[in-house]
Amino acid sequence: MENDRNGPFQPARRGFLKAGGAAAVAATALGKAAAAQALPVVANDDPYRAVEPFFGPHQGGIVTPQQSHTYVVALDLTTDKRDDVIGLLRAWTDAASRLTRGEPAASIDGPDDRPAGDSGEALGLGAARLTITFGFGPGLFALEGKDRYGLANRRPAALVDLPRFNGDQLVPEKTGGDLFIQACANDAQVAFHAVRQLARIGSGIAHIRWGQAGFLSGPRDETPRNLMGFKDGTNNPSIKDTQVMDEFVWAGSEGPGWMQGGTYTVVRRIRITLEHWDQMERGFQESVFGRQKKSGAPLGKAKEFDALDLEAADKDGNPVIPDNSHVRLSNRATNNGAQILRRSYSYNDGTNFYIERWPPWRQETEYDAGLIFIAHQRDPRTGFIPINERLAKFDMMNQFTTHIGSAIFACPPGARPGSFIGAALFES
Amino acid sequence: MENDRNGPFQPARRGFLKAGGAAAVAATALGKAAAAQALPVVANDDPYRAVEPFFGPHQGGIVTPQQSHTYVVALDLTTDKRDDVIGLLRAWTDAASRLTRGEPAASIDGPDDRPAGDSGEALGLGAARLTITFGFGPGLFALEGKDRYGLANRRPAALVDLPRFNGDQLVPEKTGGDLFIQACANDAQVAFHAVRQLARIGSGIAHIRWGQAGFLSGPRDETPRNLMGFKDGTNNPSIKDTQVMDEFVWAGSEGPGWMQGGTYTVVRRIRITLEHWDQMERGFQESVFGRQKKSGAPLGKAKEFDALDLEAADKDGNPVIPDNSHVRLSNRATNNGAQILRRSYSYNDGTNFYIERWPPWRQETEYDAGLIFIAHQRDPRTGFIPINERLAKFDMMNQFTTHIGSAIFACPPGARPGSFIGAALFES
Repeated sequence: MENDRNGPFQPARRGFLKAGGAAAVAATALGKAAAAQALPVVANDDPYRAVEPFFGPHQGGIVTPQQSHTYVVALDLTTDKRDDVIGLLRAWTDAASRLTRGEPAASIDGPDDRPAGDSGEALGLGAARLTITFGFGPGLFALEGKDRYGLANRRPAALVDLPRFNGDQLVPEKTGGDLFIQACANDAQVAFHAVRQLARIGSGIAHIRWGQAGFLSGPRDETPRNLMGFKDGTNNPSIKDTQVMDEFVWAGSEGPGWMQGGTYTVVRRIRITLEHWDQMERGFQESVFGRQKKSGAPLGKAKEFDALDLEAADKDGNPVIPDNSHVRLSNRATNNGAQILRRSYSYNDGTNFYIERWPPWRQETEYDAGLIFIAHQRDPRTGFIPINERLAKFDMMNQFTTHIGSAIFACPPGARPGSFIGAALFES
Repeated sequence: MENDRNGPFQPARRGFLKAGGAAAVAATALGKAAAAQALPVVANDDPYRAVEPFFGPHQGGIVTPQQSHTYVVALDLTTDKRDDVIGLLRAWTDAASRLTRGEPAASIDGPDDRPAGDSGEALGLGAARLTITFGFGPGLFALEGKDRYGLANRRPAALVDLPRFNGDQLVPEKTGGDLFIQACANDAQVAFHAVRQLARIGSGIAHIRWGQAGFLSGPRDETPRNLMGFKDGTNNPSIKDTQVMDEFVWAGSEGPGWMQGGTYTVVRRIRITLEHWDQMERGFQESVFGRQKKSGAPLGKAKEFDALDLEAADKDGNPVIPDNSHVRLSNRATNNGAQILRRSYSYNDGTNFYIERWPPWRQETEYDAGLIFIAHQRDPRTGFIPINERLAKFDMMNQFTTHIGSAIFACPPGARPGSFIGAALFES
């Protein structure tokens, strides 16, 4: 079956519409008894019950159709023992395989005199298409020159330290990390629950450096809109196009064997000054993006997926899509054909309070909201880095955005049952 | 029907499965044409499309079955003109009535030379059962003794300043506020979008003091669980019981006429040290709550809704439900029959970073997560205040919780079409 749910690029929802839908309708028409028999099919297509595979050639959460919520976390390793790291990855793999099936990470029913197991807040919630993606930061290979785990010579060349970009205002406690966990699910509590269990399992070996919840509203039958009100992701490469994924997302034979089938992930916490943005004229906003707000169409075109015409000029000879618009600067044609797979989420952490440092020294409250930018690629040196260098210098959007956090991780390929995530890295 | 969608513990989705579900099944069996005809019914039961009424004797968002997301915000008035306040409430009422119907607050299609209208990020998302609830803080009536709007003598006696409770660690910038907006919806972006539009409308008259996003996962066919993993709300009074609502939630003739049919709302931002909690034994956690974790049953009972037996003792004569357990201290019987209507949400704002102030001065990262406690009542002097005074002193849960923010508001009754929220307050 072309669209079966084990296919790496098939959204569960699409599978339902194309394949499961017919079965569900048939089952319903047959009445209650038949419907009960057909329950596994129906359950699989409920976005709160559906299960994404954990084991496989690639990790989940990369080319998986994007779920509505995420919790991402970076941890610092506090152990100096290689075996602790291996043990942690084994335990995480085991727990993640259970969590992604919608099961508790551990029993909550142990005897009363033992510490609590699974914290319980996801009981009854279902798997909600939970995926758990693990990544390795530079500090796993060597920290401040110290080779803690005998891995220094195994660091992939593509796992570069990101350069400082123009305008970066990175906060150390929102930046970096030795290990990365991205939990995505169709329920905020399911995603956070997964990270909480994994963090507790790591207690004494790794501690959380930073964590962040994200959401993505309404990806029902349209490209979802970001908090700036624009459709976001229209030009993303198709996760269904295995050839493009192989060329631009999955690490290949150019790097170490243990990373083949993995990907390099860049995470940026980008605060957006929504109050400021909300005061701008719509026409100006559209110039910043290079797209129309309502339809998402490129300026000068009618429909969202119409091709960009970067050559088009108005009657005065000015480009229809401004030189410093986001869509032009980030476009493939402007970037030597480079593509990255964006899989970002909005975040909304309430408000920040600050006192202005110059007269009239008034107090201000601002939304602490923006974008958890997440991008996967075969090699950041030809992907995120050159694209973002151009954006950081020229993008008109920079007036409204501040990069607060940053991290890069090597996300290894998926694990086979019985093995664990990253096993090949530790084979001598 | 006991479990209809107006029930207090009944999520919209449960209503869909139990009530709308039958219609949907029937429609499906009838085939495509019939299903198309049945669309309005299906749409009403779609939690992302359903509409809650804005106008009416009471404001929405109080006895409305709880939606899955909220964004709450408090604003400080910066004007000294009474007419500005009236104009703002008129504009807010108008915008809120449109937003709750799933419409933009204002056109986004104005000419390019005008500031952008609606910020657009909710386009296509539907009403998602959006409710918008407005409240008035003490500062509307008088701020630091100054009667800015000629309302000082109209402040209701029930709108007291909350006392300092034992253990309070209130942060001024998360506390108080002259005006309150609570937006609840089945979509995080819809709720936040509503507040953003209203905040922008208030530009120059009121500015945001604090804002907070919240969520409530999985209230599908069970009482939802809080981040401590326990079912939360089992003993809440039933929103279907109009007699109880009249007695304990809605302000009556004992206070000013303009508040009759309104309610007094207490908001507390309660941080929970989840890392600490997650290390506790399950048996201890259950003693703290006075309930079983998995089933939610009171200790010594089998089912969630079994009545508490506060007299029960074990074979050694110790109370089965510990003296300082949360369920005992917050119980109606312990509080002279007082009841409040809780309508709280979890929050999850990533992580806080701090450096310990004593040796070994290590850096620590902790979850910035917990509960936005929201409680409605006829009179806080017999509701929240005495209940929380007891809890603040004795509740075992206090080891794991810190009250960071606090506010109290008088939420007036609902508005009639053509009028505005709080109109009667401004009638001389």
